[in-house]
Amino acid sequence: MKAHKMSLLVTGSLGVDTLETPSGKRDIALGGSALYFSFAARLFTPVRLVGVVGEDVPHELLDVFKGYPIDTAGLEIRKGSKTFRWHGSYLKDMNEAVTVGVQLNVLAEQGPKIPSQFCDSKFVFLANTHPALQQQMLASLKGVKLSVADTMNYWIANEPAELRKLLGKIDGLVLNDGEVRQLTGERNLVVAARQVLRMGPKFVVVKKGEHGALMATKDLEFVTPAFPADTVVDPTGAGDSFAGGMMGYIASQGEFSVAALRRGIAYGTVVATFTISDFSLDGLKRASRSDVDSRLASFQQAMLY
Amino acid sequence: MKAHKMSLLVTGSLGVDTLETPSGKRDIALGGSALYFSFAARLFTPVRLVGVVGEDVPHELLDVFKGYPIDTAGLEIRKGSKTFRWHGSYLKDMNEAVTVGVQLNVLAEQGPKIPSQFCDSKFVFLANTHPALQQQMLASLKGVKLSVADTMNYWIANEPAELRKLLGKIDGLVLNDGEVRQLTGERNLVVAARQVLRMGPKFVVVKKGEHGALMATKDLEFVTPAFPADTVVDPTGAGDSFAGGMMGYIASQGEFSVAALRRGIAYGTVVATFTISDFSLDGLKRASRSDVDSRLASFQQAMLY
Repeated sequence: MKAHKMSLLVTGSLGVDTLETPSGKRDIALGGSALYFSFAARLFTPVRLVGVVGEDVPHELLDVFKGYPIDTAGLEIRKGSKTFRWHGSYLKDMNEAVTVGVQLNVLAEQGPKIPSQFCDSKFVFLANTHPALQQQMLASLKGVKLSVADTMNYWIANEPAELRKLLGKIDGLVLNDGEVRQLTGERNLVVAARQVLRMGPKFVVVKKGEHGALMATKDLEFVTPAFPADTVVDPTGAGDSFAGGMMGYIASQGEFSVAALRRGIAYGTVVATFTISDFSLDGLKRASRSDVDSRLASFQQAMLY
Repeated sequence: MKAHKMSLLVTGSLGVDTLETPSGKRDIALGGSALYFSFAARLFTPVRLVGVVGEDVPHELLDVFKGYPIDTAGLEIRKGSKTFRWHGSYLKDMNEAVTVGVQLNVLAEQGPKIPSQFCDSKFVFLANTHPALQQQMLASLKGVKLSVADTMNYWIANEPAELRKLLGKIDGLVLNDGEVRQLTGERNLVVAARQVLRMGPKFVVVKKGEHGALMATKDLEFVTPAFPADTVVDPTGAGDSFAGGMMGYIASQGEFSVAALRRGIAYGTVVATFTISDFSLDGLKRASRSDVDSRLASFQQAMLY
């Protein structure tokens, strides 16, 4: 019953990435927002994964979950469809990927179905996808305690009406600094965050990459620097790992509170450092909860005054 | 004797600015690194000011120090010379000034002389100027406990040999993220900061504007976000106010310690928010120590988890 009370569902992308960074190149790397989110969140609580891949999916992407508390009952392998592929390069700027190529493939088709045994999930993260699909996913669930969504520049520009509808239905929004400025037309991040709150969510978390994060509720703002990482091999998945660490910790508490959100943001910041320390999922996959707790202690030490 | 033990000397620019920001324009605004530094540091400890202006100096720039614990015995009004002038615009980017025009005037001549009664100063801040002049200033002082310098892109590019000599003589270096990358050729700020330490200083503070600061010694890194400010009227002097708050607090402790440096960085972060809240010196001039302490408490609250 305890696991049920803390049940965390994520729906997002799963795919195959080609990655180029100053440290080297990886040709067939596991990727996707839901992959990184799940492996970050599983450090704190069991995860229910909902996503869709094509029948060409490499077996590594199906096998990677084995031995981890990630329930893949919601992972659909769709006949006649192809898996999402993304080719990104950080050769110009480690802080922002250049998309060399993208094949949406199965992500451009209808969304995955949420298995009936997942419909009682209490904590939900709607990773970046079409905001109409995010609403449809949310509508399939009953008794949700906390719903949080991510979005991106593409939907802000091309689906503003659906995005505004989504914002009226979710508890929290996670997005990066460029996106919150684009969504609100406001450069100052504190002012921009407050404008997002007026669109519906009870809280907004603005990810600033190597500069940390800003969180706002109607009553307060919270800021955190990034962990001072000296080794950044591959930034792919840092933002999704941040969200996974944050939501995983909150769900593990059984109830949403601003205190849990603040501590979740600190955990998310720390979990993301394992992701960027190696290519693809390699660094995050190896991390244990005690690794994370020990790095959180160093992080607190690095901020104390 | 106590004030003597804590004596803080600053040498840097004093001048007249023309400022353009989205909030408006100011034509004859008081400015210069030593001005902002002094008014920030005086919140914590008396300040000894060394600088030079021309005979055209507006009386406002001489009168502004009255009633504050800033000793202007080292402020030279040079006959036949003209005061430094800078025209900056933040209309394109609030995070980085565009220099519309600059007239070095008296700053291109020989440096000011340090009055003999200032030569026993224990804490010294060498604000940005030619690194040969910074070395000459430092050499005039006896029994310095802590010497810290600022620099800028111009000297990194054009006086690398003199700058390296300076780095071998000072205890601490303060510079911004772009400058530390330029100085070391390294993008990662933690790695860049460690490279600076190998050039001589015992600590380096990297200012990241609206993203806070990073400090490194050979034993540790320390990070702090910026205070989440919702009102930024004029960013001019934010970095110098940060340095002034930091050095003022350290000097007020009578001895240098890493603990004092960390708390000094937190104070510097908070003091800079008063500077940017209004044009020129107006916001910083009005601030009292109790205003600063109260904002530091809010800042700690905004970071706690």
